[in-house]
Amino acid sequence: MKKLINSPEDVVRESLEGMAAAHPDMIEVHFDPTYVMRAGGVPEGKVGLLSGGGSGHEPMHNGFVGQGMLDAACPGEVFTSPTPDQMQAATEAIDAGAGVLHIVKNYTGDVMNFEMAEEMAEDSGIDVRSVVINDDVAVEDSTYTAGRRGVGGTVLIEKICGAAAEDGYSLDDVEDLCIHCNDEVRSMGMALTSCTVPTAGEPTFDLGEDEMEIGIGIHGEPGRKRLDIEPADAVVERLMEPILNDLPFKKGDDVILFVNSMGGTPLIEVYLAYRKAAEIAEAHGLTVARNLVGPYITSLEMAGLSITMMRADEEILDLWDAPVCTPGLRWGM
Amino acid sequence: MKKLINSPEDVVRESLEGMAAAHPDMIEVHFDPTYVMRAGGVPEGKVGLLSGGGSGHEPMHNGFVGQGMLDAACPGEVFTSPTPDQMQAATEAIDAGAGVLHIVKNYTGDVMNFEMAEEMAEDSGIDVRSVVINDDVAVEDSTYTAGRRGVGGTVLIEKICGAAAEDGYSLDDVEDLCIHCNDEVRSMGMALTSCTVPTAGEPTFDLGEDEMEIGIGIHGEPGRKRLDIEPADAVVERLMEPILNDLPFKKGDDVILFVNSMGGTPLIEVYLAYRKAAEIAEAHGLTVARNLVGPYITSLEMAGLSITMMRADEEILDLWDAPVCTPGLRWGM
Repeated sequence: MKKLINSPEDVVRESLEGMAAAHPDMIEVHFDPTYVMRAGGVPEGKVGLLSGGGSGHEPMHNGFVGQGMLDAACPGEVFTSPTPDQMQAATEAIDAGAGVLHIVKNYTGDVMNFEMAEEMAEDSGIDVRSVVINDDVAVEDSTYTAGRRGVGGTVLIEKICGAAAEDGYSLDDVEDLCIHCNDEVRSMGMALTSCTVPTAGEPTFDLGEDEMEIGIGIHGEPGRKRLDIEPADAVVERLMEPILNDLPFKKGDDVILFVNSMGGTPLIEVYLAYRKAAEIAEAHGLTVARNLVGPYITSLEMAGLSITMMRADEEILDLWDAPVCTPGLRWGM
Repeated sequence: MKKLINSPEDVVRESLEGMAAAHPDMIEVHFDPTYVMRAGGVPEGKVGLLSGGGSGHEPMHNGFVGQGMLDAACPGEVFTSPTPDQMQAATEAIDAGAGVLHIVKNYTGDVMNFEMAEEMAEDSGIDVRSVVINDDVAVEDSTYTAGRRGVGGTVLIEKICGAAAEDGYSLDDVEDLCIHCNDEVRSMGMALTSCTVPTAGEPTFDLGEDEMEIGIGIHGEPGRKRLDIEPADAVVERLMEPILNDLPFKKGDDVILFVNSMGGTPLIEVYLAYRKAAEIAEAHGLTVARNLVGPYITSLEMAGLSITMMRADEEILDLWDAPVCTPGLRWGM
């Protein structure tokens, strides 16, 4: 296992200490229970936004905490759910009187623990809502999932709902928007290589020298099929086609197109893939109104990419354009 | 070779097409000769800033073109110098009457070709200056270098000089600032794995399963020594010590600390390394006034990291904080 770590048990804590040292203007990190919170606290009367999940997908979610996006994130160990007590502590810390929305990726452990945290927070008198994100069209049910997995759509949803909360939306309205965004977004990923969880010390799965996995999950869960490697354009077609047909996206739709590196795939290849994805979207009659290109929801050092597309009305585009200031996504401030 | 490409010969062009499609608000891409230019052209009377070099280090340099940073960048093939005609075309395109500064990383091919371009531009009556960046403390002379290599310091210098040019500095003053920044910055890198140049199809070098290369260059050029892998904190010490001693950095100095992923090293590890680097800097009596953490000057999918530190006076810090809007670095707008 070739990693720049000290000991597998300390990876998450030491990485969080590094984030805290690097970004005191944007975030503060609390330990035991562990959560990352927006620096300076949540403005009175603003809806609080919390997400979380296993570590190893950075910058998601810790890197999306800050003004205009999440108010807090709960990181679990690598590819492991955070615990209800982390979520409860974060929920209490970011409740500024207007309630808290939990944005939960659809994995069994995350869903179960967020449900427990929701009950605990309600016992404390906090109005908590929860929306489960399930944008991955690759497979129904999966290793850690009943139903579809939550993947790249989560990044777009956290940005858009973060802007809405910042803009003064009520808890009801942020919840409705979050459900609406989840309805309008679809994703699919693929991998050229596995990744290695530090405490496991061995690759999560094996892929032959000439193989790729289409429809992979962000923890290396099996996808739709294993195939011989193809040219990038053909790979992008394999991801775009199920995304386009699932919603379905229709001629005339405005979309946000997000081409994401799984971690190990360099930017030169991600842009090359974006070129083809945008071409396919436009050939389908869509207008790529906004885009995001780069490593935003990763699987440690896995080589591969995922494509996410959201149908976007004017409200969504305005919220997308709103200022954001987080370690992982920043513009307008 | 596991890459998301179509054919090795088309990687650079197709990736640039993707960049052009993704960021028409920030950049425009010209082909034959090939250069990436700031969208909308250079404001009249502003000094033009040009850099360039082999591709494969993205987001550097193409991703640093835009308001507040570079006015143009010339990408060569992967790890191959761009040609003088690219540089001349870009120089002419960004001369807005105040002259053009070439920011050149110290590699023999880059230096030679930029010198030729400078002569060609002067024949066209453009006032061109050139500053060679050589911040890598790892080795004197190297595979492609007489003297020290230009590495991570280039990213900081392009940001700072870009802000100065935007602020109305004269060509003389931007040139002086660029030389000053180069004097004040030091870097060193290491690798856990090689990378593979698409047209070569084989890893650039071999590293054993338990080995790392300390002092590696950004093209996989040999460094100082090959060692058994150590804990991240020990690796960071091996990079920080030569950097600290070379300038030397002194108690009371304000610094910008930049911890960079070579590409394949995930953000969770880069932050873990940042934690130790900041700790060492502070133990040395330095104040880490600003920082940058992430993949900004990469070597394709190479796993590893580099550390760059610049001594920063108030002028440098103000220029660092100034707004920047490029595909790869963005804040304040």
